[in-house]
Amino acid sequence: MKADPSVTHLIISLALLGGAKKPVRAKDLSRLMNASRATLSRWVSRAEELGFVRSATSKKSQYVMLSEKSLELLRSIRESIEGIEWGEKVVMGEVFSGMGEGAYYMSRKGYLRGFMEVVGCRPFPGTLNLRLGHEDAWKVVEWRRKVVPKVIPGFYEEGRTFGEVEVYPVTINGEINAFSVFPRRRHYGYDVLELVHEENLREKMGLRDGEVVAVTLKSW
Amino acid sequence: MKADPSVTHLIISLALLGGAKKPVRAKDLSRLMNASRATLSRWVSRAEELGFVRSATSKKSQYVMLSEKSLELLRSIRESIEGIEWGEKVVMGEVFSGMGEGAYYMSRKGYLRGFMEVVGCRPFPGTLNLRLGHEDAWKVVEWRRKVVPKVIPGFYEEGRTFGEVEVYPVTINGEINAFSVFPRRRHYGYDVLELVHEENLREKMGLRDGEVVAVTLKSW
Repeated sequence: MKADPSVTHLIISLALLGGAKKPVRAKDLSRLMNASRATLSRWVSRAEELGFVRSATSKKSQYVMLSEKSLELLRSIRESIEGIEWGEKVVMGEVFSGMGEGAYYMSRKGYLRGFMEVVGCRPFPGTLNLRLGHEDAWKVVEWRRKVVPKVIPGFYEEGRTFGEVEVYPVTINGEINAFSVFPRRRHYGYDVLELVHEENLREKMGLRDGEVVAVTLKSW
Repeated sequence: MKADPSVTHLIISLALLGGAKKPVRAKDLSRLMNASRATLSRWVSRAEELGFVRSATSKKSQYVMLSEKSLELLRSIRESIEGIEWGEKVVMGEVFSGMGEGAYYMSRKGYLRGFMEVVGCRPFPGTLNLRLGHEDAWKVVEWRRKVVPKVIPGFYEEGRTFGEVEVYPVTINGEINAFSVFPRRRHYGYDVLELVHEENLREKMGLRDGEVVAVTLKSW
């Protein structure tokens, strides 16, 4: 990917016109790329020198097609997007250290037991906290309106009552399935996500305060 | 795809670093893209304005991630490369009108019957002829050395003998499965491919002399 930007642009435009499988007319390419024929011709020469495209000039016009080198690149791209559930919402949040409230709640026997019963796994007794921007906080509100949560019932422990907690499924950085918990007696504002997993997410992912992660908002 | 080249380059570089699923550090991006942080920052702003990426600046550094708009683009790219058998060779050839020899041979009863028996389909009695460049002609020679052909036996008809014909599988423009035939008593040089299909390929594909098509050299 140390090719110059115009070469990448050419490869992708060609792919979109089917140039991975058949020769594409230079005329059609220059239309899609909004580039003059002279500009396109310069880009094609450059990309051909680098081995990313092949071209042929016939009686009628110039044709361009992706080379095997470009197909390798497109295959890497394909791998990098594999497993994405199209249409799911993703939010970005910044890791911060909470006041330990999440850990306090999540380590109550009543919650550990409830979580096990409702979700089927034993949570690490602590949460990973993320601070969201306004737009993402709004996406979370929308999501919670659409997805029906699993609910951990409230209980009585150590002389006090603990309220219900809603649980929703998420994926962190597109690879770790986890849960987002929302105590109905809320201790954080709407701009915070509290994430729960079987392991210590902070350690597992090597996260420190101030780092940014992506959370895919899923449904059961 | 009327975005400017630098935006496309940014989207693809981000995808290769996993930015479809998680936020990527601007530092890592500028390294991959071989661009200064200032240049990258300008590209990120432009791509963010156009809705292709999202960025977040935390205490530690700037992070960039692909937006849903980019994911749609990547999905189109994925579709355009779907069905490719990686590692197969592709050659490009220019359509030309032969001297009718292909049609003459392919319309002999002996060949029609032999083709049906050996390949299992009834060919249109005529060939689509392609002229190849030197490099592609060489790829065809290599291919014929590796793939074992099906052979239509010779026969006697109208007072003369007709020789054996080798048949190899190909795909035209990544979508039409066809056959390449090589009479062992060759009437064309090595720079020509003669293609056979159940239908008239020239009509089916709307081809005229001078147009360029791609042929994927396959194996049985």
